[in-house]
Amino acid sequence: MTDDRHRNGTIQGEEAIIALLAPLAEGHPGALGLKDDCALLTPPPGTELVLKTDPIAEGVHFLAGDTPEDIAWKALAVNVSDIVAKGARPLGYLMALSFPRPPAHAWVSRFADGLRAAQQTFGCHLMGGDTDRRPGPLTISITMIGAVPTGRMIQRATAKPGDRLFVSGTIGDAALGLLLARDPAQAANWKLSPAETEHLLARYRRPAPRLALAPVLLDHAGAAMDLSDGLVKDLDRMLRASRTSGHLDAARVPLSEPARRIVAASPDWLGRLVTAGDDYEVLCAIPAAKAAAFASSATAAGIPVTEIGAVEEGPAALSVTGPDGRPLALPERMGWDHF
Amino acid sequence: MTDDRHRNGTIQGEEAIIALLAPLAEGHPGALGLKDDCALLTPPPGTELVLKTDPIAEGVHFLAGDTPEDIAWKALAVNVSDIVAKGARPLGYLMALSFPRPPAHAWVSRFADGLRAAQQTFGCHLMGGDTDRRPGPLTISITMIGAVPTGRMIQRATAKPGDRLFVSGTIGDAALGLLLARDPAQAANWKLSPAETEHLLARYRRPAPRLALAPVLLDHAGAAMDLSDGLVKDLDRMLRASRTSGHLDAARVPLSEPARRIVAASPDWLGRLVTAGDDYEVLCAIPAAKAAAFASSATAAGIPVTEIGAVEEGPAALSVTGPDGRPLALPERMGWDHF
Repeated sequence: MTDDRHRNGTIQGEEAIIALLAPLAEGHPGALGLKDDCALLTPPPGTELVLKTDPIAEGVHFLAGDTPEDIAWKALAVNVSDIVAKGARPLGYLMALSFPRPPAHAWVSRFADGLRAAQQTFGCHLMGGDTDRRPGPLTISITMIGAVPTGRMIQRATAKPGDRLFVSGTIGDAALGLLLARDPAQAANWKLSPAETEHLLARYRRPAPRLALAPVLLDHAGAAMDLSDGLVKDLDRMLRASRTSGHLDAARVPLSEPARRIVAASPDWLGRLVTAGDDYEVLCAIPAAKAAAFASSATAAGIPVTEIGAVEEGPAALSVTGPDGRPLALPERMGWDHF
Repeated sequence: MTDDRHRNGTIQGEEAIIALLAPLAEGHPGALGLKDDCALLTPPPGTELVLKTDPIAEGVHFLAGDTPEDIAWKALAVNVSDIVAKGARPLGYLMALSFPRPPAHAWVSRFADGLRAAQQTFGCHLMGGDTDRRPGPLTISITMIGAVPTGRMIQRATAKPGDRLFVSGTIGDAALGLLLARDPAQAANWKLSPAETEHLLARYRRPAPRLALAPVLLDHAGAAMDLSDGLVKDLDRMLRASRTSGHLDAARVPLSEPARRIVAASPDWLGRLVTAGDDYEVLCAIPAAKAAAFASSATAAGIPVTEIGAVEEGPAALSVTGPDGRPLALPERMGWDHF
């Protein structure tokens, strides 16, 4: 089967898809060139493995108009984000692709290009996978495998009263980007510059896992997780898992410049941004004695972090206060739940 | 959230689904009770990991009328089958569930029961996962992780000229079972007893990975893979990957009693059975000097194996002869390809 035959048309056969993806596996000898049913992996000495699976589907996690490169990037990034928040570094991934109809050769080729760029940025390799055809949305199911020094994975359930709560980056941008992708006219309503519009769209389409934060978390964090379903909901999960209470000061939540302007114009937006999904930033609980060192190490690693609240004694209750010091009004549906 | 509230109704929230699945993770401490975003795994000393992902979807790999218990069993079995054919034993799995609409509490509960039974049979545990809701068919995406003694995974691409080809069990039963599931009237056409009908349906719905064969393969096999897309297609893949030719004597392919009667009545069925998918038996290439020892070790382990052909010198060509010694007529579409 020659490339020319299919360069401009529909791809013919699983083997043709595998041929386009095989170069992505060259960096992992245990992938066996994608010529076996299974892949092999030996953890680096002194490490144990951190595993995560998080599929993304068209219409749910990305939009039909998104480019193959962006879809590939996001599929990998959302899984790397989880691994990094545990203090681990990504090693490789398995990927199952489900197409509702045979894809164009050009689409698969561009998708592979997007994966290649993401792999190089994240330092991991394709190890194996599966492709099939079924009705329903295009789906990319990635299982990411990372390595962490043995016994040192940072858990979600280990926050302690007195810990300071930090987040990386800014919150809520991806939700604004999604609204812009769905309705470009919003850019004028919000008085966004073209650069701001691009920035918010990129925050939705190309999440940037905080790889450089992983070693800083290992040295300082008591608990950590990545933010995917909204800051308030994910923080609530951390507190419940840790059987602690906590407080979030919404006025301290870091916002991008356009997000800040939107909140200034319509203060109820603050509640929406702190409950919106797709941030892929890190939430962590840092023992008070280490908080200053954490912040300076994160800054030295090039990752902005902001203290937004604290873990408290109590039965897993979260209070969220607004800029006026009173409980912040939150949208009825707090964070993303599929059910 | 109490169980009573949902026992008979639609499940409310991802947390309620996770609560039903969490007991399946109790045997794997690194699952952290499914309370974290990630799972931890340390390979047993002296082993490396064997990884496989193979999602199954309603309408493609199982039918809308199949029970939750059977669907759960099959989702796990098809992945265990791959691992076992590599000489590995299953350790645990990650599972992503995609529902087109919120499932009934009873469905998830029965699905968990099916997983529990399969886990106990296969000796593995749930380690982590994800649930979401999206249009399209119900999909269960499992990534299975097994362990094999370091350096000893049996590959697909390592068959050598002179090796004898063996398969476990019988071939083509699942294809007959699928036809029976779709059209129960076939049972009368084929003059099947109720027990035979049940047997063939079970071969489709509840594949039985050959766990006891894994150590026998480690000691004897030069190459191995499980059969999922049809004997002829999968054997062709093994030969191509190994850059060898080979010969399949279709008259020696082991058939169940009902399959044998169907072929006796309509000889063209033989070509259909050796190209039909969903067998989940093991295909292996055994060096000639070890063939007798392999067969007797497999028998001692309780697994029937049958010699069906040989690997030959040559440029990756497969010849298939029928009972008359001439090339067997095969259906135009050889084996299952999604594209």
